[in-house]
Amino acid sequence: MAGPPVPHSAAPRPAAPRPRVVIVGAGFGGLEAARALARADADVTVIDRRNYHLFQPLLYQVATAALSPAEIAWPIRGLLSQQRNARVVMCRVTGIDREDRAVLTDDGRRFAYDYLVLATGARHAYFGREDWAGVAPGLKKVDDATGIRARVLTAFERAETCDDPAERDRLLTFVVVGAGPTGVEMAGAIAELARRALARDFRHIDPKATRTVLVEAGPRVLPAFDPRLSEKAKAQLERLGVEVRLRSPVTECSAEGVCVGGEAIGARTIVWAAGVMASPAARWLGAPADRAGRLLVAPDLSVPGHPGVYAIGDTVSLPGADGRPVPGVAPAAEQMGRHAGRAIAARIAARYRGAQAFRYRDEGSIATIGRGAAVAEIRGVRLSGFAAWMIWAVAHIWFLIGARNRVVVGLTWAWTYLTHRRGARLITGPAPAMTETAPERAPKHRADAA
Amino acid sequence: MAGPPVPHSAAPRPAAPRPRVVIVGAGFGGLEAARALARADADVTVIDRRNYHLFQPLLYQVATAALSPAEIAWPIRGLLSQQRNARVVMCRVTGIDREDRAVLTDDGRRFAYDYLVLATGARHAYFGREDWAGVAPGLKKVDDATGIRARVLTAFERAETCDDPAERDRLLTFVVVGAGPTGVEMAGAIAELARRALARDFRHIDPKATRTVLVEAGPRVLPAFDPRLSEKAKAQLERLGVEVRLRSPVTECSAEGVCVGGEAIGARTIVWAAGVMASPAARWLGAPADRAGRLLVAPDLSVPGHPGVYAIGDTVSLPGADGRPVPGVAPAAEQMGRHAGRAIAARIAARYRGAQAFRYRDEGSIATIGRGAAVAEIRGVRLSGFAAWMIWAVAHIWFLIGARNRVVVGLTWAWTYLTHRRGARLITGPAPAMTETAPERAPKHRADAA
Repeated sequence: MAGPPVPHSAAPRPAAPRPRVVIVGAGFGGLEAARALARADADVTVIDRRNYHLFQPLLYQVATAALSPAEIAWPIRGLLSQQRNARVVMCRVTGIDREDRAVLTDDGRRFAYDYLVLATGARHAYFGREDWAGVAPGLKKVDDATGIRARVLTAFERAETCDDPAERDRLLTFVVVGAGPTGVEMAGAIAELARRALARDFRHIDPKATRTVLVEAGPRVLPAFDPRLSEKAKAQLERLGVEVRLRSPVTECSAEGVCVGGEAIGARTIVWAAGVMASPAARWLGAPADRAGRLLVAPDLSVPGHPGVYAIGDTVSLPGADGRPVPGVAPAAEQMGRHAGRAIAARIAARYRGAQAFRYRDEGSIATIGRGAAVAEIRGVRLSGFAAWMIWAVAHIWFLIGARNRVVVGLTWAWTYLTHRRGARLITGPAPAMTETAPERAPKHRADAA
Repeated sequence: MAGPPVPHSAAPRPAAPRPRVVIVGAGFGGLEAARALARADADVTVIDRRNYHLFQPLLYQVATAALSPAEIAWPIRGLLSQQRNARVVMCRVTGIDREDRAVLTDDGRRFAYDYLVLATGARHAYFGREDWAGVAPGLKKVDDATGIRARVLTAFERAETCDDPAERDRLLTFVVVGAGPTGVEMAGAIAELARRALARDFRHIDPKATRTVLVEAGPRVLPAFDPRLSEKAKAQLERLGVEVRLRSPVTECSAEGVCVGGEAIGARTIVWAAGVMASPAARWLGAPADRAGRLLVAPDLSVPGHPGVYAIGDTVSLPGADGRPVPGVAPAAEQMGRHAGRAIAARIAARYRGAQAFRYRDEGSIATIGRGAAVAEIRGVRLSGFAAWMIWAVAHIWFLIGARNRVVVGLTWAWTYLTHRRGARLITGPAPAMTETAPERAPKHRADAA
């Protein structure tokens, strides 16, 4: 592919070169954009800094030891191996050369494009309190999930052998900040893990002594849902033993716990699910963005002033047909990816009939809370409890990519449902630095009475 | 359990305290020792620095992306949750107080013992070339395996976009040092991964261009097996495309590759399977050890001069009935654990009839090489090829702990066998620092012709 550069006027070109489409990001949106270009007469390059596509909606199940990373992640190469016009490149994008129309990467390469799709998503954000990142990790990447899993499980291990009642309480208190879908799912899953899955394994911990606190600055959980479902979700969380604190903005986070509304909650484990920030795509282009860094795109998802450049998914801000913004969920990203990919395919095939506005088709929202507990809103129908949970389970198994994973995840869930056990309870990676005080305690040898 | 200390002469003791048995290490040996004490009237404490028991014989399958860590590891608490006299403590042992008879840990605690079982295993060793550890990782822990997996997969990712033919060759050359069972399994699995599983996913790599080199200082592969099986194993490795270099001690290891017998083999990925070193158990006790650090135990597995202390598994050196040392394999560790546990149980129940010598029952040896390829030696019967491989697969699924994992691993293997695909191809954790030269290449931006 990397032949010597042909001088501009040297020889008649044997054929028009195939247009180059570069897609940055292989999440739900980027992957759909690539697939929509499967039959285009183009060279499609998909760039991602990971070698896998992550089924992010189930990441909280990795963080709470129910699933393994490989059960919800799939190598991008494998997903696109049948698409002959696509190639996959693993590296980190660092910027865009707008004049020369090329994507720049951290290993010093340039990927020239005729069309560009930015599908770079979002990451969690602390909105000016980036110093909280160390004590209150968010949940966006596989390593985030295995890190949170190690923290939660290590907290139980330490509590089991802890003599100081105040410290044991801190170790057995889990605070989740933010009551959107991720926060609700994490809080429910931690409460279930503590009260059921781990109950029989510890000798000195009373599962009832664990405390899971869900802290939300706004007036209700799941603010994107109908208020009646927010109420139901709150009741289901409380039935699982989660303390729900509404109208409680966090004013301080440390290794000792959080402060909410003047009250200090001692906790060694804090999970951050309170906000996201768009990727730097807007900055790379020097294009206008909203407060959360999201690119302001035209109704057809193109970036104004940048011909041939589209942006999709969580990294863009777009008002929907009803004036409400298109939500940052997987189906929205997929629909946008398909829309942008088809627009580019039409332009390449010279059957482009002008910009078509993207229309978001709301296929419904589901948030799961725990075993047999969920809320769902599907085309105006509201469901909660077991029925919503069944729809959630079937939908998620169905959408999981790869036949093998569908079987493994289905089996794993059936097994977890029937036995209350969780298989992936491994503390891996470097030891989590959970307590600032631990090194001080170390020198004091004490007699063990057991 | 941790009540206030009772002064020595304060009150008559209500009953004789239950003897305390401390088991350090929850590998195959330690776990069996704990189980052998299930009915003993004792307090059994199992200490491990991990929260899981690892099925180490399958760790190479994690390193080569066939299985996930959670499929071969199981929380120790879950394994012992039914055994009411046992408790599990996760921490790192740092030494033993021989006078006060207590195990010391890194968090400053002491675990007093009446009986002690040291089942602390072995780790890989570089025999004076510890500086090679960074470039030639070994395979003993889960994090080793996910690290090697990230290296191997990253090498393919870099090779796919590499323009320099010499560098591409280095990226696609995988050297395994040491042709014991682990080395043979790793070499075979890498060759299969490269030639089959990844073949269809890359656009610019010719799977035939990958090179897997198995380097062994001795005169044959699998030296613990019958020489005829060593020959068969070598032939099967070569059929998979592995270059086997015998009588080739490694004289140098670096990020550029290895030197064997004056020849430099350029390779970005080196896996160390050349030797193990016992845990520091002998040092903790100040007891005599052999050259590899293994404790010299009495025939009944007790440590001479340390009453009530037993040592088992890979951390001890013991001649078998035939004069050959008991091999460092899982069944030997399990048998030793059972032997030591039963001896302690007998002493506690006051039905101890003196030291009984441990006798190793050789249940046979199997080493797997690849899909349908293995060698086995079972009670004098030698098998190779598909028959040996079937025995290996059935035996390993059978011995995997936990009903769920048996099903998942069985399904995963069936799927891998039928499709040549591998599901767990995730590059997780920090990016592997594979090349020393990469930063030098970075500033040179080059035009991408694709």
